[in-house]
Amino acid sequence: MSPFLDTFKGIKSYSPPIWFMRQAGRYLPEYLDVRKRCKGFLDLCYSPELAAEITLQPLKRFPLDAAIIFSDILVVPHALGQKVSFEEGIGPKLTPISLHSFEDHLTVKNFFKNAAPVYQAIHLTKSKLAPSKALIGFAGAPWTLALYMIEGEGSRDFAKAKRQAFENEKAFTSLLDYLSEVISLHLIEQVKAGVQTLQLFDTWAGLCPATHFEKWITSPTRKIVSNLTEAFPSLPIIGFPKGIGANLGEYVSQTKVSGLSLDTTIPLSWAIKNLPSSLILQGNLDPILLVSGGESLKKSILSIHEDMQGRPYIFNLGHGILPQTPPSHVEECVQIVKGQR
Amino acid sequence: MSPFLDTFKGIKSYSPPIWFMRQAGRYLPEYLDVRKRCKGFLDLCYSPELAAEITLQPLKRFPLDAAIIFSDILVVPHALGQKVSFEEGIGPKLTPISLHSFEDHLTVKNFFKNAAPVYQAIHLTKSKLAPSKALIGFAGAPWTLALYMIEGEGSRDFAKAKRQAFENEKAFTSLLDYLSEVISLHLIEQVKAGVQTLQLFDTWAGLCPATHFEKWITSPTRKIVSNLTEAFPSLPIIGFPKGIGANLGEYVSQTKVSGLSLDTTIPLSWAIKNLPSSLILQGNLDPILLVSGGESLKKSILSIHEDMQGRPYIFNLGHGILPQTPPSHVEECVQIVKGQR
Repeated sequence: MSPFLDTFKGIKSYSPPIWFMRQAGRYLPEYLDVRKRCKGFLDLCYSPELAAEITLQPLKRFPLDAAIIFSDILVVPHALGQKVSFEEGIGPKLTPISLHSFEDHLTVKNFFKNAAPVYQAIHLTKSKLAPSKALIGFAGAPWTLALYMIEGEGSRDFAKAKRQAFENEKAFTSLLDYLSEVISLHLIEQVKAGVQTLQLFDTWAGLCPATHFEKWITSPTRKIVSNLTEAFPSLPIIGFPKGIGANLGEYVSQTKVSGLSLDTTIPLSWAIKNLPSSLILQGNLDPILLVSGGESLKKSILSIHEDMQGRPYIFNLGHGILPQTPPSHVEECVQIVKGQR
Repeated sequence: MSPFLDTFKGIKSYSPPIWFMRQAGRYLPEYLDVRKRCKGFLDLCYSPELAAEITLQPLKRFPLDAAIIFSDILVVPHALGQKVSFEEGIGPKLTPISLHSFEDHLTVKNFFKNAAPVYQAIHLTKSKLAPSKALIGFAGAPWTLALYMIEGEGSRDFAKAKRQAFENEKAFTSLLDYLSEVISLHLIEQVKAGVQTLQLFDTWAGLCPATHFEKWITSPTRKIVSNLTEAFPSLPIIGFPKGIGANLGEYVSQTKVSGLSLDTTIPLSWAIKNLPSSLILQGNLDPILLVSGGESLKKSILSIHEDMQGRPYIFNLGHGILPQTPPSHVEECVQIVKGQR
């Protein structure tokens, strides 16, 4: 009934199901209109009606196969009591936590009350979504969240956070454990509210040194997958560990995700050869090709098609849609993927 | 006679030869002292005496096995006539070239006159360097240089440059070809002036989509390796394509580099299993461990040691030394690697 969910049952459709990371966002003028109605970005995430409206916007324009709930990975630290704000054109700002006393400053006590609007937004979206369209829930993976929580902002190398992690390995592992549990609960609530599949964003996985990969990336992620699978045995869970090329085999075998979102660097032929055939691959068009459009876009889409033929997969980008993307190029891409152009 | 060069002949020493990317730089107070004597950063690169002095500074402090000539990858576009400057705390600024008319604005005519001080610095350094220490020359790889030349500055995703590349694939390929030839000539001059080995820095290789990897990364790099090997058949050439994990096998087989510098994400066990045994591996301690020092640093060094035992390799970081690194941690690292601590 849903091409997206069918893919995880091994059912291949005529064309692959398609959605885009950040498909609801700043490249859409109708998003910017709604954005104006809220002062803070987090207010938007916590307004069920507006979040639902934004979630559905791209599906009104394009024949996509899935909606991803409009929210943010930093809802988790925020609902735990950390101060989080988003500054226009700068990005997120958090009051950094200390590894030695994070449990004094974070509390699960009000988490579900704080995050309730997210679940309400999911419930509302689901009621308006055609049954053939899948609804995707998500969270940031523990490593990526921990980096933001300690660093206090985005960064090219998260040197401050990583330094603290190296200097206090035990406390850092406790934080990852703590986050694994909270993220699990947050995702379980999302499924109860109506999402049919989950994606775990480990955007900064590529900043984790190989020596700490199992401890800091796969072990915390494994806990989440395990908790979710225990609660919902047939739930598809897609991992997106960005920038870890050579470790993808270990990631898949250790975390037991059912799907893997590939970044733009991964050759699909390599993924097919080196990863289990039961794994559902998702990806991996360069988001900048959606900005440029034209012949290069078409050639790259057809090259992905060709590499993946004979295998059920999900078409997506290798990272999120960029704000400068013309919506007409997104339309073009969907049409090419669906063989209508 | 030189443990570094011996490694490329398959000779294993008691402890691996060691050097650090950016070993001559801002973390050293004596570097900052010399830096003050020049207004512009490029003036420093073009002052043979000062560049030689800086190159040798880390070897006066630490028993390193190689010196890398103090220079910058942007010397190449600058010597071709592009405007390049370095702004304190901001990074490089270039007057962006246009893909349609780059040959009108760049010229090889004055290249060797412009770049001559680099070769003089090499000559001078070599005359002061103990014969047991190897002297390394380097250049940026065509892809990484082209991104800077088009974008005009550093960037997280080089969206502007990549967009131009996708929209003008033919012109972009011409630029890469052009750069491959110029870089080859620049490296040949470095060898003539006294360097005994070369490293090709492809810092932004991880921004190249898999679909264009052969065209934009390995093919231009192959040309350089081929030109150099023709001129100097036994010259060791180390490639450093950062962020391309899953493509390393292709990189090595297509470019024919003799050494590979691994970024921090690459598990050494994976590299040993998946890459040719004749390839000399270099790496890959996380530079942030050199900032934090202590137990984590020691454990990670010993873990690299253990993974690589029985194999000739070169100890290095997975990226450059960070400015906030305490020199005492560098000393500690060298002592641990050399089994003196």
